[in-house]
Amino acid sequence: MTYATRMLDTHSRDFNLDADVLAAFIDAAGQCSHACTACADACLGEASVGELVRCIRLDQDCADVCSVAARVASRQTESDTDLVRAIVEACATACRACGDECDEHASRHDHCRICAQACRDTEQAARSLLAAMT
Amino acid sequence: MTYATRMLDTHSRDFNLDADVLAAFIDAAGQCSHACTACADACLGEASVGELVRCIRLDQDCADVCSVAARVASRQTESDTDLVRAIVEACATACRACGDECDEHASRHDHCRICAQACRDTEQAARSLLAAMT
Amino acid sequence: MTYATRMLDTHSRDFNLDADVLAAFIDAAGQCSHACTACADACLGEASVGELVRCIRLDQDCADVCSVAARVASRQTESDTDLVRAIVEACATACRACGDECDEHASRHDHCRICAQACRDTEQAARSLLAAMT
Amino acid sequence: MTYATRMLDTHSRDFNLDADVLAAFIDAAGQCSHACTACADACLGEASVGELVRCIRLDQDCADVCSVAARVASRQTESDTDLVRAIVEACATACRACGDECDEHASRHDHCRICAQACRDTEQAARSLLAAMT
Repeated sequence: MTYATRMLDTHSRDFNLDADVLAAFIDAAGQCSHACTACADACLGEASVGELVRCIRLDQDCADVCSVAARVASRQTESDTDLVRAIVEACATACRACGDECDEHASRHDHCRICAQACRDTEQAARSLLAAMT
Repeated sequence: MTYATRMLDTHSRDFNLDADVLAAFIDAAGQCSHACTACADACLGEASVGELVRCIRLDQDCADVCSVAARVASRQTESDTDLVRAIVEACATACRACGDECDEHASRHDHCRICAQACRDTEQAARSLLAAMT
Repeated sequence: MTYATRMLDTHSRDFNLDADVLAAFIDAAGQCSHACTACADACLGEASVGELVRCIRLDQDCADVCSVAARVASRQTESDTDLVRAIVEACATACRACGDECDEHASRHDHCRICAQACRDTEQAARSLLAAMT
Repeated sequence: MTYATRMLDTHSRDFNLDADVLAAFIDAAGQCSHACTACADACLGEASVGELVRCIRLDQDCADVCSVAARVASRQTESDTDLVRAIVEACATACRACGDECDEHASRHDHCRICAQACRDTEQAARSLLAAMT
């Protein structure tokens, strides 16, 4: 059981969202933020860094957006639905852009292949959370 | 001249956005992130903290979202327009929610009054940037 | 196998650190950052929020410091040893302070109990990483 | 008057630190975080990106550490002195490493020259704050 599930289980407030869907998003976005940070750094370390400029750029954005989306979604006290929705949508958009770019390099760089998968998983988890919020 | 303007002036790439509008957003969001962090902390230090729970919550979200929106907007190499737009929209939404809440406490707490102003300024700067991106 | 391990396995550069010790720190710090964010929020939602002010404060600091320590430690391209050491030491210090405070409330609040454990685990992982860097 | 000064002026708690020294650090670290984010991105956009790998790496670390140091220093409710000192020291260390590296490229890239200055100013402000905490 991840910390996301355990912390939601022990939260002081009720929240009208499916805790499994929420925890899945928090975990996925946290992992994706890490994968994107590491992929940006691994790309930077490649001899072919000049061909990976767009990948590094999007990895950085996606790492930042996923990290903050996970933080906002982790908070269940006095949530503002419009705000949560906006940042989870931004997260899905970032994961789409970064996942598409990483896919382009997946055959040559395993770090891009793994990062693309993290982005796909998180985009999916974001869309499931958005659907659950309707 | 702020660092945002100086760094945009010396950037290695061309970018098809009005540099003044972009720098104004970066500066406003950076200042707002700081103001929200400080307001959350000042609220936490009030004897009446129990009445400021929603304000602290939204200050935290707004600090996080503004900080990341400023980072993404600062990057001009291989930008993804959909991604930039999504995070700037999330920033405007966060500033709206947090500014509205801080306004409720502005007459009693100067830190809320100042923070509300930072949120209003940043929401405006975000909307100007979104308009310039069209 | 976590993303930390998978991303280190596929990194473009060699690094003269035990990958298991490094991955353990990255994973622990990432989990702890999330646990602290969630604990701050759960404390904020308690009726007794006035007694949890110091806990919320330290949770916020610890969440921020753990998150950045995990990012810095995830990067293996052209690392600066002094810099890595300084942020991992700051992480250990933050986890010590936050773990001690959360322990004070562990008997009444399960979120504090779980968060204290995350802080203890991360302080330990930070100290193991510092030892491995010597 | 910056937001750092205005927010410290209106804070709910007393703090036994010189407010000018504290505000100077918060402002410098916030500006430096932005300058480093922008410098990493401008380096990434250069044709000679392969020669700027270490600069990009340190810019990213320094941006992350300065951002969190500014957040922690902005909080004045129930501060933990050891924790504040540890993150401000990490900030000084990051600014030293990043400033040294940016200096190497200052004659060719104005973004590195400006970023080096932001790092020098922030290292100085961090050392002044550490001295004031003794």
